[in-house]
Amino acid sequence: MILTIPSTKKREVIDLTNVLAEQFRGKSGHFYLFVQHTTAAITAADLDPGTDLDLLDALQGMLPQLQWRHPHDPAHTPDHLLASIIGPGLVVAVKDGAMQLGTWQRIVLLEFNGPQQRAIDVSLIGGAPEQQFEL
Amino acid sequence: MILTIPSTKKREVIDLTNVLAEQFRGKSGHFYLFVQHTTAAITAADLDPGTDLDLLDALQGMLPQLQWRHPHDPAHTPDHLLASIIGPGLVVAVKDGAMQLGTWQRIVLLEFNGPQQRAIDVSLIGGAPEQQFEL
Amino acid sequence: MILTIPSTKKREVIDLTNVLAEQFRGKSGHFYLFVQHTTAAITAADLDPGTDLDLLDALQGMLPQLQWRHPHDPAHTPDHLLASIIGPGLVVAVKDGAMQLGTWQRIVLLEFNGPQQRAIDVSLIGGAPEQQFEL
Repeated sequence: MILTIPSTKKREVIDLTNVLAEQFRGKSGHFYLFVQHTTAAITAADLDPGTDLDLLDALQGMLPQLQWRHPHDPAHTPDHLLASIIGPGLVVAVKDGAMQLGTWQRIVLLEFNGPQQRAIDVSLIGGAPEQQFEL
Repeated sequence: MILTIPSTKKREVIDLTNVLAEQFRGKSGHFYLFVQHTTAAITAADLDPGTDLDLLDALQGMLPQLQWRHPHDPAHTPDHLLASIIGPGLVVAVKDGAMQLGTWQRIVLLEFNGPQQRAIDVSLIGGAPEQQFEL
Repeated sequence: MILTIPSTKKREVIDLTNVLAEQFRGKSGHFYLFVQHTTAAITAADLDPGTDLDLLDALQGMLPQLQWRHPHDPAHTPDHLLASIIGPGLVVAVKDGAMQLGTWQRIVLLEFNGPQQRAIDVSLIGGAPEQQFEL
């Protein structure tokens, strides 16, 4: 299924953990998460107050300041590059509805070019075809 | 199966999307992509003209200039480090032969030490053993 | 199953390849590796002498020096950020007990805040439930 997540800012860390937990209620297996956009990414993170902005600032500061070739909008290039560096997806294990995460681990969407509606493919890996793509 | 991809330059972003789409024709499931080398990586990317070189330049510029300990060839160290930072693989969902990507998303091989022949394991996750490793 | 890996230093690259190979003896399929902590990560790496320290130094040097907001312990913020940038896990293909890696590829745990005992979920993707979570 496609989970649609709205973002509200240009750059934002959105905690997906609770909305995913609702999808996984009562289910077990390994689930695929993949954001279908080139200016967003998915990873795991600690989310103490302020660590979301720390992560966004670190990612911007980590990239060198270059003359980007990207013709569409050069200022927009780092958004694409960070999406590729972090990566579009994760696999997460779920056992009786519980994601098998560490105590402080959250699954997050990194938005680099919002606000937008972001489509995330959430599907069961290795089940029968109709189980895989319909949760 | 092992997909062999030739690279032609020292550093290069190689679009794998079309060659993968041929492999996946008529198939459904979640496919594993894993490059079996320590100076190459796989991720998703936007590929407007010039964004491939933007990505390669950003990755080089992002690493600090240090005295590398790597005894084999210190100048070659960043190629290994970038491979570890980006990561060797992805999982990608395929439905009736169509990779479930965003409009502008491409699956790419990042070559950091070409030209070489690069081996990529492409296999179906969770099928019967003979389905998994032979597409 | 949960694999418990002790780390012995603040920052360390721990080679998991041999301990994983023992777990996978005689097995085939795609295995999920996921470290259940917010200051550790899993990736693939070349491990020539010194490249472990090269990787740790490069990761520290790659992050900008900022005033972190993280209230718990600001000096500890980069440990969380690097864990999110590298990512918590990998999927790895195993065929008749052999991980399908390149000649020089090792699977590594990156410890950013040791010494600690680190829990890694190692499970078979797509098997029957009892196969998945008990190796």
